Amino acid sequence: MNHARPLPGYLVTRYHGWKATTYAENSAWYRRLASEGQRPRAMVISCCDSRVHVTSIFGADQGEFFIHRNIANLVPPYEPDGNQHGTSAAVEYAVTALKVSHLIVLGHSSCGGVKGCYDMCSGKAPALEEKSSFVGRWMDLLRPGFDRVSERGLSEEAATSALEKEAVLVSLENLMTFPFVREAVESEELSLHGLWTDIGEGGLQYFDPGTREFGPV
Amino acid sequence: MNHARPLPGYLVTRYHGWKATTYAENSAWYRRLASEGQRPRAMVISCCDSRVHVTSIFGADQGEFFIHRNIANLVPPYEPDGNQHGTSAAVEYAVTALKVSHLIVLGHSSCGGVKGCYDMCSGKAPALEEKSSFVGRWMDLLRPGFDRVSERGLSEEAATSALEKEAVLVSLENLMTFPFVREAVESEELSLHGLWTDIGEGGLQYFDPGTREFGPV
Amino acid sequence: MNHARPLPGYLVTRYHGWKATTYAENSAWYRRLASEGQRPRAMVISCCDSRVHVTSIFGADQGEFFIHRNIANLVPPYEPDGNQHGTSAAVEYAVTALKVSHLIVLGHSSCGGVKGCYDMCSGKAPALEEKSSFVGRWMDLLRPGFDRVSERGLSEEAATSALEKEAVLVSLENLMTFPFVREAVESEELSLHGLWTDIGEGGLQYFDPGTREFGPV
Amino acid sequence: MNHARPLPGYLVTRYHGWKATTYAENSAWYRRLASEGQRPRAMVISCCDSRVHVTSIFGADQGEFFIHRNIANLVPPYEPDGNQHGTSAAVEYAVTALKVSHLIVLGHSSCGGVKGCYDMCSGKAPALEEKSSFVGRWMDLLRPGFDRVSERGLSEEAATSALEKEAVLVSLENLMTFPFVREAVESEELSLHGLWTDIGEGGLQYFDPGTREFGPV
Repeated sequence: MNHARPLPGYLVTRYHGWKATTYAENSAWYRRLASEGQRPRAMVISCCDSRVHVTSIFGADQGEFFIHRNIANLVPPYEPDGNQHGTSAAVEYAVTALKVSHLIVLGHSSCGGVKGCYDMCSGKAPALEEKSSFVGRWMDLLRPGFDRVSERGLSEEAATSALEKEAVLVSLENLMTFPFVREAVESEELSLHGLWTDIGEGGLQYFDPGTREFGPV
Repeated sequence: MNHARPLPGYLVTRYHGWKATTYAENSAWYRRLASEGQRPRAMVISCCDSRVHVTSIFGADQGEFFIHRNIANLVPPYEPDGNQHGTSAAVEYAVTALKVSHLIVLGHSSCGGVKGCYDMCSGKAPALEEKSSFVGRWMDLLRPGFDRVSERGLSEEAATSALEKEAVLVSLENLMTFPFVREAVESEELSLHGLWTDIGEGGLQYFDPGTREFGPV
Repeated sequence: MNHARPLPGYLVTRYHGWKATTYAENSAWYRRLASEGQRPRAMVISCCDSRVHVTSIFGADQGEFFIHRNIANLVPPYEPDGNQHGTSAAVEYAVTALKVSHLIVLGHSSCGGVKGCYDMCSGKAPALEEKSSFVGRWMDLLRPGFDRVSERGLSEEAATSALEKEAVLVSLENLMTFPFVREAVESEELSLHGLWTDIGEGGLQYFDPGTREFGPV
Repeated sequence: MNHARPLPGYLVTRYHGWKATTYAENSAWYRRLASEGQRPRAMVISCCDSRVHVTSIFGADQGEFFIHRNIANLVPPYEPDGNQHGTSAAVEYAVTALKVSHLIVLGHSSCGGVKGCYDMCSGKAPALEEKSSFVGRWMDLLRPGFDRVSERGLSEEAATSALEKEAVLVSLENLMTFPFVREAVESEELSLHGLWTDIGEGGLQYFDPGTREFGPV
């Protein structure tokens, strides 16, 4: 790897500041986390988007959440075909090895991946249809959600927002196709949660299986 | 989705605290991020491990880092085969759509995924060799790193630690197999960085291509 | 301009060092800032004093803060009389063109401008009262602050320190006389912040509108 | 001031990091700066632009540079009319009270203020011509530079870049209209320097009075 470069100086400076304060104040806990291993209460699956900070929203500290982040917080269906499935590996590790008690899927407003899916499925983004588009192929996972949304005759803005919430629901549905997830859910060792956050307004909604709607927490 | 459950109350409480404080103090910025879109300076690829908090270490706030997290911070090689590649999709989006200037791969000590890889490749974890093991198949990505480490005749503890750093290097190598990454690196629009953090001691090392070693930042 | 001289050698040397290190590590980001334009999150108004380094205190890098520095971090009241108002121009540009989310006024200890104001208003610096004194006329902006402080019967040392904080408050008050500032504040697109730093002790206080006092951050 | 808000938490965190590292390492020097007063070697006049960091470029620490920053690094001509002249006050303080040895005017590429001046003087920005435009009235200072540039028959891009350098020269010329500046220059107690930096490329040029051109330092 001749291409790696030193870390930009402003990050080095900030790191040293963290070391001298946050680390110093918590070193006993960090050492214990290192020696005894992690024991997170929840797994969170959220988007890579730089505007989504699940640790900030929930005041979480090191050791609390096992976090997988991918484009549009999607979980593929169970497919044990021997190929590489990074998201499925993360879910498997969290549920079978770490035995987390909660699995939270967190969607968000203004999601670029969901917008790309909407455009692709509406025929407005042919480049995303190409075999070589990693984003396009990844967003194929959300096609079932698009189909459900497109039946509702919404405006483009409302449809995109609805599709962001479908990304949460599709992931929750796909999670239940994993035998180890279903088993943990049915034995009440694991509970699933669907959330959606509004970045600009700082809002947080959860999926209520009773009403089958998202509503404020 | 009849299986979704309301959010645990302690998280609801913390969220409302965040809304009344951190959100309130930053609402103008969050609204602007929502209306104008994100413009992160860097993409970070780190592990899902609950003990790794890149935003904390670097004093980063919402909008600064586009973050992908998977088991053992691995990037697969470029493989545009039409299948779902969540990590490749995240890299593609960051480099081609967001045009981030830095791509940081952050490994860490006590990595469970790396330990699993070590055990699997040493013949001590046959379950991980099974086709149906998502973690095993994902950790196959690190086999080239295991081969390099095993030539060095290290103790198990030293070998596992070396393998954590190999996870960073393998990812950096694989990143360069993506045409759009290579092009951005060669035109100096993107720089790659390899880091490894010691959870218990709060240490941070970077890969220096001159010495071909990791050393303190 | 026959009077311009080449840059002193020690600065040329340091510049070349910066170019080979900091610039080289961040060139991708600097190029992006150049091609896409700045998008700072905050405007900071601080003193010209060589001992005040807002970027250092806040670990800020290029692109984060739009910074105006003048004597005693003062903002004049809104006065659209067609004359040159450099501070008002900077505020106008930051709020209406760049749409910054935060506007921070940072005062500091041992402020020479504030001390001059105190002496002038106490009758001890007649030279500053002269029409031709640019510093004196500039410090006239702080006379309302002096009046408030002088009612409190403080020692000279305490009064000077109080006047440094009044410089922050007078500026915040005057900022609200600008229609575009008031509008942005009232629509919650902009928030104002008053700070004061102690140079020798490295302290940082903020104005709390609840208690109407400055207290440690 | 009921409108002031607490400082955003990420800045508070970074400040505490600075306090525990940079401040702690330099506290003896900062305390001496506080007790003995500043004694800067140079005054720098640069733009408010968030991409211009003179302390970074020159590796300057607290106490080295007395820095005034305004839109487009402009100095108005000497005008002792009893009105408020923030830039003139800063120059007066630096030269007569602090007796700095160098006065550096630093222009830069992609300057929004200079671009506004170019558009205004070309008849393309009528809003900037209005009496109530603080930016427009401030940029009036650069009209003599526009006149000189417009005689050269350059493309818009080349003309804007040339105007950025004129902003430096106009400021240097105006500085010499201040009696205390002229006197200090003529007695060789003060030297003036004109610089221009290219943000994207990290370049630095100085005005050479011999060739009457800007060239690399």
